[in-house]
Amino acid sequence: MSTVVALGGNALMRPGERGTAAEQLANLRRAVAALQPLLGESALVITHGNGPQVGNELLRQERAADEAPALPLWLAVAQTQAEIGALIVAELHPALGDRPTACVLTHVRVAAEDPAFDRPSKPIGPFYSAEQGEQLGRERGWAMVSDANRGHRRVVPSPEPLEILELEVIRTLARDKTVVVACGGGGIPVVRRGNRLAGIDAVIDKDRASALLARGLDADRLLILTEVPAVYRRFGEPDQEEIRELSGTEAKELLPTLAEGSMRPKIESALSFGRETLITSIDALERALAGDAGTRIHL
Amino acid sequence: MSTVVALGGNALMRPGERGTAAEQLANLRRAVAALQPLLGESALVITHGNGPQVGNELLRQERAADEAPALPLWLAVAQTQAEIGALIVAELHPALGDRPTACVLTHVRVAAEDPAFDRPSKPIGPFYSAEQGEQLGRERGWAMVSDANRGHRRVVPSPEPLEILELEVIRTLARDKTVVVACGGGGIPVVRRGNRLAGIDAVIDKDRASALLARGLDADRLLILTEVPAVYRRFGEPDQEEIRELSGTEAKELLPTLAEGSMRPKIESALSFGRETLITSIDALERALAGDAGTRIHL
Repeated sequence: MSTVVALGGNALMRPGERGTAAEQLANLRRAVAALQPLLGESALVITHGNGPQVGNELLRQERAADEAPALPLWLAVAQTQAEIGALIVAELHPALGDRPTACVLTHVRVAAEDPAFDRPSKPIGPFYSAEQGEQLGRERGWAMVSDANRGHRRVVPSPEPLEILELEVIRTLARDKTVVVACGGGGIPVVRRGNRLAGIDAVIDKDRASALLARGLDADRLLILTEVPAVYRRFGEPDQEEIRELSGTEAKELLPTLAEGSMRPKIESALSFGRETLITSIDALERALAGDAGTRIHL
Repeated sequence: MSTVVALGGNALMRPGERGTAAEQLANLRRAVAALQPLLGESALVITHGNGPQVGNELLRQERAADEAPALPLWLAVAQTQAEIGALIVAELHPALGDRPTACVLTHVRVAAEDPAFDRPSKPIGPFYSAEQGEQLGRERGWAMVSDANRGHRRVVPSPEPLEILELEVIRTLARDKTVVVACGGGGIPVVRRGNRLAGIDAVIDKDRASALLARGLDADRLLILTEVPAVYRRFGEPDQEEIRELSGTEAKELLPTLAEGSMRPKIESALSFGRETLITSIDALERALAGDAGTRIHL
């Protein structure tokens, strides 16, 4: 069986944490322990988010800008692929025995004319108070949104991933039994300009990029690990109901009821992948693999 | 023919530059044009330095430390592999046509008991005045050195590279005709602790790591691109003399006359590789490949 596993933000950083290397390593140790049943897959590719990390990196770029040039967002995304990739590889290493593992820096092509560039929607970085948020929007030209009771946050364009440039490389390594870490943070966004590649400032949704990767690799299964153990009907309401199974038709019907930027892109990613997708949390993964937890989308 | 090319700092950043993405891309365009004659090699792996970039990244970590946790040096090295790797891949892409290229995040094992940890020697980051240098050494516990008329600079341990953890992955891809970018900045330094890998704060000399990689890959040739077109006898003196060819014995005799941290590790790397090594500059590369410039060490 070949599986693409998409690690959500909380595999790396938990509520109240700042994202130190020690915190991320401790969280990854827990994530890798949960992934143990999958480490024998015939092909295994691990992707991951980078929301808090890219936010931290942008803060660093900004604060030091008078002494060290601020790199563009697309390079900050690249930097988080290495930060997180190095941590994942270090934690996977002892769990894999002789099986090799490597992180492949991954560029993902988007369209320069993607409407997302006119409508920034992907929250990154720290939460601010309403006043701070308003000030930052005014002073730095950032697009800001208010995010689920936690405050105000910068949003950046999140264009649709069209092509994973390192797909063949990832496929070659995965076939050769290497556990590949790829597509971190949704990939480094690039556009084609003639025969050249140019980085572009955006953050691609990591679940959409993971689905594109899983489809490209002809994987049997996409496993999306997130903060909640399953998809819910009427999430957050008193009568919320955990969903165990969804057909493609049911998944499409459910879509409009789901939160944009949260569960909706995960279900859309499952639909675009077109094969079995399992959505669950790290804590519920063992039971989900046994069919006793999580949401399985059959396609 | 299979070649490992080690790009020196000035392939990415030239005197007076700060290291913006645009500057690095422009310099890489020039470097990639010079590498054109090598792009058809049966196997081609490109390594690179990261001195100014890791210095910039450490400044960023430090300046934002009250808002975003400062990552350790070994993760800053990882970040520079991605920053520079993403830029190299973007510039190589149009030059390679259908030939794939990818950057593999590379961990390099060193010994925790390497004496280098007691004797920091690798300069990183910006140059400071004598007074600033003294203050930084005192306040932050940095080891500082005075570097060739340009001022004072932080030095960090530079342990000997012992094992390239992603060697098999790089070999698989290089055999499969992928132009691999690897071992950036000398690799992410790690030590073994039992069966685990732990990052350790150091910067490995990129030429030594490149030699280890070239040996591991059984490459035919190591090509070290640096600021000067060749190795010199009596470098910097009025009667300096460019060296065109060196045998192993001659190279060993020359070693004590060469600058530590500059030409000496390049010749030591050539000797540890044990096959043909060509040392030259980007500008002289075309003539050097034709045998009319550069220093060729025959082993």
